Amino acid sequence: MNVSNSVGIVSAQHAQFNTPFLCKSGAVLPSYELIYETYGTLNKDKSNAVLVCHALSGHHHVAGYYAEDPKNIGWWDTMIGPGKPIDTQKFFIIGLNNLGGCNGSTGPISINLNTGKPYGASFPVVTVEDWVKSQAQLADKLGINQFAAVIGGSLGGMQALQWSLAYPGRVRHVLAIASAPRLTAQNIAFNDVARSAILTDPNFYGGDYYEHGVVPTRGLRLARMLGHITYLSNDAMADKFGRGLRSDKYSYSYDIEFEIESYLRYQGDKFAAYFDANTYLLMTKALDYFDPAREYNDDLNKAFAVARANFLVLSFTTDWRFAPERSRAIVKALLHNRLKVSYAEITSTHGHDSFLMQHTHYHDVMRAYFDNIASEFTA
Amino acid sequence: MNVSNSVGIVSAQHAQFNTPFLCKSGAVLPSYELIYETYGTLNKDKSNAVLVCHALSGHHHVAGYYAEDPKNIGWWDTMIGPGKPIDTQKFFIIGLNNLGGCNGSTGPISINLNTGKPYGASFPVVTVEDWVKSQAQLADKLGINQFAAVIGGSLGGMQALQWSLAYPGRVRHVLAIASAPRLTAQNIAFNDVARSAILTDPNFYGGDYYEHGVVPTRGLRLARMLGHITYLSNDAMADKFGRGLRSDKYSYSYDIEFEIESYLRYQGDKFAAYFDANTYLLMTKALDYFDPAREYNDDLNKAFAVARANFLVLSFTTDWRFAPERSRAIVKALLHNRLKVSYAEITSTHGHDSFLMQHTHYHDVMRAYFDNIASEFTA
Repeated sequence: MNVSNSVGIVSAQHAQFNTPFLCKSGAVLPSYELIYETYGTLNKDKSNAVLVCHALSGHHHVAGYYAEDPKNIGWWDTMIGPGKPIDTQKFFIIGLNNLGGCNGSTGPISINLNTGKPYGASFPVVTVEDWVKSQAQLADKLGINQFAAVIGGSLGGMQALQWSLAYPGRVRHVLAIASAPRLTAQNIAFNDVARSAILTDPNFYGGDYYEHGVVPTRGLRLARMLGHITYLSNDAMADKFGRGLRSDKYSYSYDIEFEIESYLRYQGDKFAAYFDANTYLLMTKALDYFDPAREYNDDLNKAFAVARANFLVLSFTTDWRFAPERSRAIVKALLHNRLKVSYAEITSTHGHDSFLMQHTHYHDVMRAYFDNIASEFTA
Repeated sequence: MNVSNSVGIVSAQHAQFNTPFLCKSGAVLPSYELIYETYGTLNKDKSNAVLVCHALSGHHHVAGYYAEDPKNIGWWDTMIGPGKPIDTQKFFIIGLNNLGGCNGSTGPISINLNTGKPYGASFPVVTVEDWVKSQAQLADKLGINQFAAVIGGSLGGMQALQWSLAYPGRVRHVLAIASAPRLTAQNIAFNDVARSAILTDPNFYGGDYYEHGVVPTRGLRLARMLGHITYLSNDAMADKFGRGLRSDKYSYSYDIEFEIESYLRYQGDKFAAYFDANTYLLMTKALDYFDPAREYNDDLNKAFAVARANFLVLSFTTDWRFAPERSRAIVKALLHNRLKVSYAEITSTHGHDSFLMQHTHYHDVMRAYFDNIASEFTA
């Protein structure tokens, strides 16, 4: 751990909301809690706040490390810290775990106070719109009327875009990285296979596995294995694993023998040991549903007519999950609305996962953009 | 059914082999049986025989229909028949179910005469090399010393290529369609997720589910759903399903709601109802293992040094499972060895599945190539 440019020891905080929360589905949560972390200092006029929205399996621990668990470093620690692209000497950064998550915010594993049991299957299917609404309630609680920036990669990028639509006056800059204006049929298809793996796991019990004392590990493991294939590029997989074998000859059995099999199963096992299957279902569904153009007869230009923010849109050349053309579709709609938008297509071999990685050109673009944001306010 | 250009009513035949069959793995089958069909008439000097090798879920019923089940039309009926690209008025065509299959050839569901029970998990992991060897034994039995052509798509194309390597003197033309010289890490990864779905299905019982009176339907269903995503192109999926819903609004549940979900689950259910899970495992493993360059230090040029056939290599622009570049790698190695090779990259929106479809340009190329083959012999 390079302490010199780390935000250092961090700790999570909780925000409790006791007003009923109406979900887009019509479901109502009587109350909810969000877990979050902050890095840097909120300036006097509260104009330097940056909200980081997480992707499918992300959470509130975005940067720094825990005193009691120093190896548990935030998932975007390469991006956030003193002197890093999102500089904590200039910005006040908030990371949270989304509603429905399994890392401390109210979700399917939380106890429903009405029943005394975990929500399980009764937890509502929340959407990107719901998340952004709950994030705005967190901002209210922290006294932040307007974010300097809302930023996210992948599903996080969708939340950042949604901020510009739901609260155009509350965000000055929106950064959508490796994102898309909506999923394609192929994207939905992959999500559906992942969901089917979980839903048909005999240990799923219709979502109420908690009370059976089991977890649908098999399904969750398959979902994650499949997810990993879509996060990596074909090239990156070829470079990293190729057709490498763990032994020097074929086993003629169904045991793990190719390096790529070993990697996938390891990732699957690791994930299934800590992530909640109901949260996984809910996150993939939020991905499937996000489609701001839907209520405008599929016209994305019309959907962004309400936006007022400035935008940075980034994509990665080998990302086939959310390919550069998906980002260009966003850019096109923003330009149509005469909005200020910067776009960079970063050459990277790492596929969709590039947005989480340390990459000079990518980080340079981010640093330059955030330096410009910082020049708009006084610390 | 257009009877005028159909081969008409067909029926399957069986060939029994009582000499022990040594698999590449070292395993030995004491005897085995192959089920096959033939179309057209073998000419006097037996020079007009064409062998059709099937892909992952294919079988011996390639053309025509059954008297007792007229809707059961062969899987390549568009390609084979009187006046069709592979003209049964000129060629004698053989389709078989591969060793390890579940459509009538000896496979995991067959009774092991030594135990009186289905082979199940004890059936050997067979390879493309094993299949080609067994196909040559079938050719021996039919008195065919040399095929005019061996042809196949996808995994079938690998068998066609293997014919040129294992029996260079026994095949004059090899046609490899939508194929690859070996799988990439990404290809193997998809197979591994499919296999993991089956292997971890509680009804799999280590491959001996027959004696438990159950089938690992859940796993097989997931494997097929995933397979289908890789057979279709992103564009074809977008055109056919897009983000279409079965109802007019979101359900906010985990029920099927997008058209693509409905399609995938239907395909998965249909497949799981008739295909054998052990055969599925074995087929995917044969795919993973095929790698003729492996014993030549990954030099495909050296691997093809032994080949003497003429080749037609075909690929389809939107096939991302076995992309055109994979076919071009085959062509390159063939040209390096001064072999006669024709190559066509067919513009098609249908992805990997294009090889099974009726497509004017594709069928024209096939017809022209087979007309040329026919001009080499007298009927």
